[in-house]
Amino acid sequence: MSVRHARDVETQAVKAGDRTTIQVLVSSEEGPNFALRRFTMAPGGGMLEHTNTVEHEQYVLQGRANIGIGEDVHEVRAGDVVFIPEGVPHWYQNIGEEDFVFLCIVPNKEDVIEILDKGC
Amino acid sequence: MSVRHARDVETQAVKAGDRTTIQVLVSSEEGPNFALRRFTMAPGGGMLEHTNTVEHEQYVLQGRANIGIGEDVHEVRAGDVVFIPEGVPHWYQNIGEEDFVFLCIVPNKEDVIEILDKGC
Repeated sequence: MSVRHARDVETQAVKAGDRTTIQVLVSSEEGPNFALRRFTMAPGGGMLEHTNTVEHEQYVLQGRANIGIGEDVHEVRAGDVVFIPEGVPHWYQNIGEEDFVFLCIVPNKEDVIEILDKGC
Repeated sequence: MSVRHARDVETQAVKAGDRTTIQVLVSSEEGPNFALRRFTMAPGGGMLEHTNTVEHEQYVLQGRANIGIGEDVHEVRAGDVVFIPEGVPHWYQNIGEEDFVFLCIVPNKEDVIEILDKGC
């Protein structure tokens, strides 16, 4: 059992992201089946197109971003719910003037991330 | 793949709760491993002490409540993260003047709820 405030959870840079950090709110060690993480993307930040070997269930807490999923682009903001199945290419771009913050839940399975767009 | 706003998701009463509703944001049919739900407890509402056969990973979005977990009582508000292992008795009481709203993620396993405090 645990109760903690998200602000007190360690923040780590996401190497595959731009101006992007992650906080593991409930880890795969604590939770027997899935992990609850919070991502923060500063204005102008995001992540290039990539795939994961696990699905994402997400809830937007703050800010405004474009999320590309497959061929589609969705503008999202607080209260939006996103489901990205495993293996589907996706990307994020903060298009607002404040941090884009969202929860992302993943199962306790090995996740391999593959960046599809290497930039130039 | 899906993107939707939480406000557009059907709201259902929680029979075991008082002034409590649930929205299934990502269902156990859509998500292969876990379901993402949003609970809203109106001022004065909550749930009596009970157990579940699945764990809960929770994130408080709005409002203020007491959550009893085992022998402890925690006052929680927006940004608080709660992990309740399977089988641990717990209860909720909205102690604020606005709705108490939180996300609750559960694995895709059978959940049996047992109410421990039947009231009088």
